[in-house]
Amino acid sequence: MGFLENGFGYDSLKKLDQDKLSELALEVRKLIIDVSLQNGGHMASSLGCVELSMAILRQFDLREDKVVYDVGHQAYAHKILTDRLSMFHTLRTEGGISGFPKRSESEFDHFNVGHSSTSISAALGYAKARDLLNKNHHVVAVIGDASLINGLAFEALNHVRELNTRVILILNDNTHSINRRVGGISHSIARLSSNPAYNKLKKSIKKICATIPGGNSVEKRLERFRDHIKHIMKPDNIFDDLGINYWGPFDGHDIQTIEGVLQLAKRYDRPSLLHFITTKGKGYTEAENNPVYYHGVPSQSGSEKTKSWSLAASERIEAIAAKDSRIVCLTAAMTSGTKLDDFAKNNPNRFFDVGIAESHMMTMAAGLAAGGLKPWVFIYSTFLQRAVDQLTHDIALQNLPVVIMVDRAGLIGDDGETHQGLLDVSWCRAIPNIKIFAPRDETDLDRMMNYASVNKKEGPIIIRYPRGNVLNAVARVHGELGSKEEKPEDKSIDVTKSEIIHNGTEWAVMGYGATVNTAIEAMEMAAKKDIAIPTVIDLRILKPLDCVTIDKILMSNSMAVVAEDNYTAAGIGEAIAARAIEIAAPCRVKIIGVPSVFVAHATVKRQREICGITAQNIVSSFLNNN
Amino acid sequence: MGFLENGFGYDSLKKLDQDKLSELALEVRKLIIDVSLQNGGHMASSLGCVELSMAILRQFDLREDKVVYDVGHQAYAHKILTDRLSMFHTLRTEGGISGFPKRSESEFDHFNVGHSSTSISAALGYAKARDLLNKNHHVVAVIGDASLINGLAFEALNHVRELNTRVILILNDNTHSINRRVGGISHSIARLSSNPAYNKLKKSIKKICATIPGGNSVEKRLERFRDHIKHIMKPDNIFDDLGINYWGPFDGHDIQTIEGVLQLAKRYDRPSLLHFITTKGKGYTEAENNPVYYHGVPSQSGSEKTKSWSLAASERIEAIAAKDSRIVCLTAAMTSGTKLDDFAKNNPNRFFDVGIAESHMMTMAAGLAAGGLKPWVFIYSTFLQRAVDQLTHDIALQNLPVVIMVDRAGLIGDDGETHQGLLDVSWCRAIPNIKIFAPRDETDLDRMMNYASVNKKEGPIIIRYPRGNVLNAVARVHGELGSKEEKPEDKSIDVTKSEIIHNGTEWAVMGYGATVNTAIEAMEMAAKKDIAIPTVIDLRILKPLDCVTIDKILMSNSMAVVAEDNYTAAGIGEAIAARAIEIAAPCRVKIIGVPSVFVAHATVKRQREICGITAQNIVSSFLNNN
Repeated sequence: MGFLENGFGYDSLKKLDQDKLSELALEVRKLIIDVSLQNGGHMASSLGCVELSMAILRQFDLREDKVVYDVGHQAYAHKILTDRLSMFHTLRTEGGISGFPKRSESEFDHFNVGHSSTSISAALGYAKARDLLNKNHHVVAVIGDASLINGLAFEALNHVRELNTRVILILNDNTHSINRRVGGISHSIARLSSNPAYNKLKKSIKKICATIPGGNSVEKRLERFRDHIKHIMKPDNIFDDLGINYWGPFDGHDIQTIEGVLQLAKRYDRPSLLHFITTKGKGYTEAENNPVYYHGVPSQSGSEKTKSWSLAASERIEAIAAKDSRIVCLTAAMTSGTKLDDFAKNNPNRFFDVGIAESHMMTMAAGLAAGGLKPWVFIYSTFLQRAVDQLTHDIALQNLPVVIMVDRAGLIGDDGETHQGLLDVSWCRAIPNIKIFAPRDETDLDRMMNYASVNKKEGPIIIRYPRGNVLNAVARVHGELGSKEEKPEDKSIDVTKSEIIHNGTEWAVMGYGATVNTAIEAMEMAAKKDIAIPTVIDLRILKPLDCVTIDKILMSNSMAVVAEDNYTAAGIGEAIAARAIEIAAPCRVKIIGVPSVFVAHATVKRQREICGITAQNIVSSFLNNN
Repeated sequence: MGFLENGFGYDSLKKLDQDKLSELALEVRKLIIDVSLQNGGHMASSLGCVELSMAILRQFDLREDKVVYDVGHQAYAHKILTDRLSMFHTLRTEGGISGFPKRSESEFDHFNVGHSSTSISAALGYAKARDLLNKNHHVVAVIGDASLINGLAFEALNHVRELNTRVILILNDNTHSINRRVGGISHSIARLSSNPAYNKLKKSIKKICATIPGGNSVEKRLERFRDHIKHIMKPDNIFDDLGINYWGPFDGHDIQTIEGVLQLAKRYDRPSLLHFITTKGKGYTEAENNPVYYHGVPSQSGSEKTKSWSLAASERIEAIAAKDSRIVCLTAAMTSGTKLDDFAKNNPNRFFDVGIAESHMMTMAAGLAAGGLKPWVFIYSTFLQRAVDQLTHDIALQNLPVVIMVDRAGLIGDDGETHQGLLDVSWCRAIPNIKIFAPRDETDLDRMMNYASVNKKEGPIIIRYPRGNVLNAVARVHGELGSKEEKPEDKSIDVTKSEIIHNGTEWAVMGYGATVNTAIEAMEMAAKKDIAIPTVIDLRILKPLDCVTIDKILMSNSMAVVAEDNYTAAGIGEAIAARAIEIAAPCRVKIIGVPSVFVAHATVKRQREICGITAQNIVSSFLNNN
């Protein structure tokens, strides 16, 4: 390689001649592709943002100025060029650098991100803090076109005029959301981009940008420049409507143009929005041609070939929906992530990808249900956090029959802190009228989805399932220790009841979802170590708890270990402990789960180990209790 | 009275001659004013919406068509005229009609509301359900200008174009939010309204509306009509940008005009937004002149004259902020509700009313904190539900020093289900890095706020306090049973520790916030009834729990009653039960609190009784245990 060695960093970039930048961009792209394909990651967005990141780093002083990247999918070039080159190969691995900007990782990361559309609000906060502290630095938000449609971004945009502060918003318009982009705003932005004058303008923009204005006449020249563009561009747009000076669109891969535009914007004393057109996946043909697929690539090491939970859920909903025309599915920009591509293709009228708009999705689902349909919402646990008020106020309060399929629940691995699904159990079980299920395997998932589909008068139902591939630990138990043989279509199994998977002695282990497997491993470990083999319970339904089964266990064992796939704070273990006291059971309840910390990126397996959600820890709890 | 008697209802309104409508409107207004002043309620918004409601009821068939009122503040006329006339005097009282539309109350209420900005999402859901079920009715959303700036409404607006369905959005523009309105959109809407052509147009609009088009030429005539208006009005606006046909503005108090416009809109086959200008508080001079004060009037019966929690908090923050220029305050359209008017007036640069935009407020607070300031967010518990992801992802994860003052926490009385503050404890205690405090009286509130203000390196701090007036039950205890005398400035009291208020025998009662008073009442009751007087503990800090004090109580008593001011599900009682088991304490833990149901409107006192959060129930728990 040429530049990217010998500690090439932030200060080296600043000094580099402009004519070397294209070459550097090529090297940065190659590194992003190599590491993303190896470790997994958000490659396509980052490839689209290489030149923008380079220009921002060169034009701003990131030791003073504040730059907030929205979501952070696009920040790999930023990371590579801010003194993390030598660490970049550790991307998203345990102890390595995060897949997202993170303040504790680098002085050049100014705001932790992961969820979309926070950047404008954060930038406005930074800008007002600057004003009140009599500082003078710049504040920049870099936001993608897909993030712009989220309500949070809009609330911030709407606030800009009133705050009367200097902030630079950079719209990185790659014409894609994670899937396709959605909505009127996109249409509006697309109209700006497709203006035929754009191509003609390119040259003159470049020329104007190359001559950097200075001195007293700057303001006037800027206004003239802007008027000149506006004259041939669309006269009005939503940003001008909101009191934000719109400039653009510009070529987001032409670094000279970008630097020129940034130089102008820095001298402009009012809020501005700079619109750059970029290509998602730029420089990697496969990604350019299929940006949805390459939005987030999985790590090439260790991806198993068995079926994912998402795929299992999507196959089942297609089968169920085929028999019931009232079923409709909704997702918020996660068609691919939740594996609903086929459903969407086969049922275009019964499928709604609302874009990154979780809150709206949830309330719209309430409206669909009130109107007589049976909506199924597919959402990641971490993004459900954006819609819990709507779940409470619009769905649960009216007791509407909406099914919420909570994907990526529990520990989620290499995306790290921002994407953990550790709050849904605690939060949702506090909401009245909701039933919460957690399947341990695909058969159980099918049962729950069937249950949810046939109960016409049910209120909201949550089915939460983890990231990764389905397991069938129970089948293994039944094979090895097998008191009974599992039949997938066993009609006798009632999903509203917890299930005793194995009858042991002295103590019991209760799990739900992913931790049922951990409970079974603990049982196997106990068998091997020649200590009392515990009773193993799959709690299955988390709200309302199946107190008949739970009481029986609590009354007949001296100890019960509850293995959570959630924070222990406000989790299921506490509910069971309270129950044990309520019925005066002679049973100690030991809770194992995620302690009250944000869990950083690592594999799911390692995160479980770090949190102590292991068979070993379950067995030790029993031994220590005796 | 003239019309409003002898069972005047929905069908009577339909039949009424148009020339009688102004008279009816007068009567409706009088009734709204009378009942609101008596029972308390959202008078000003409802007064502004009388003619709109009447016209909607006349022009649509509410047994088929669906009408969703946003927030529901403005729905009193709708209630009076949809067969609830005889019940209207029971507004917001126990067993009476709700202050908000409610499906279980009337076939004419089509969506439960209370939180703002849900109406467009709900209407889109209703509209798509209609399309898929091959029905043909109309779907209408009525939304105020203040609600329009919330992200949820925007996400829905952005989705309209893509859904390609027929929906009528009615913008009830009274130029006010609860306080003043905020932001670029408002500016944009105001520009539409202030166009000088508006007055000239009035007559011609009336004329066009009076002649109802029919037959094949309708579409063309509508387009011509629209073009005619647009020609002299602003050529483009945000709604047209979003693919929604904007019509307006019209006089929202001229019922003939409204009915004419609705007739036109009904025949229009695409999404439309009808902009009506109304006067908040119309018909009640005091309210017209001071719509902020009259937004929600308190019940005239039973309002005590002692200081409210909100006022106590606002007085303290003004004192604290006077000594620390880094402190800034934020609220989301609740300047008056949280009593921050004086702070806002005295510190205009350090105060941000962001409008109804809780999510943005929270992330902006994170930005302000990252930028070096000390933001204090004032928010109602029920609206915090809209910003818990931002609290988690933007504030807690970065461990930023933001103080969140959670007003109206716990049971809130006559606003009913939608406004209860019963989730904040369960939800927030699951989030890492957060400290949660609940003051029992003003002295304690002051201590906590002082603590929050001096701890520079603290992460997020929540202080939750109830609706209503501050009490000082502890002073009373110390007077009557008094083992020690409370000194407000007692430096020995550490707010991060629970406090034993009274040392009793055999059993203990633990409360926090409002329920400390209940615990003291139980102690007094026990004393009177000559049964064992319990130890009384003010838990005070809910996360992290003060396990030193709690353990001591659990180890030395046979029973502890925890009185929650929250749902018992995932509440503090469960945490204490889990702790009792963890330390193998010989103590039964009985949890008293709100069961897992939505609690309807009634006085706070009655809601406590209904939920069993009473001294009597605490004492009974002890007696039943023995």
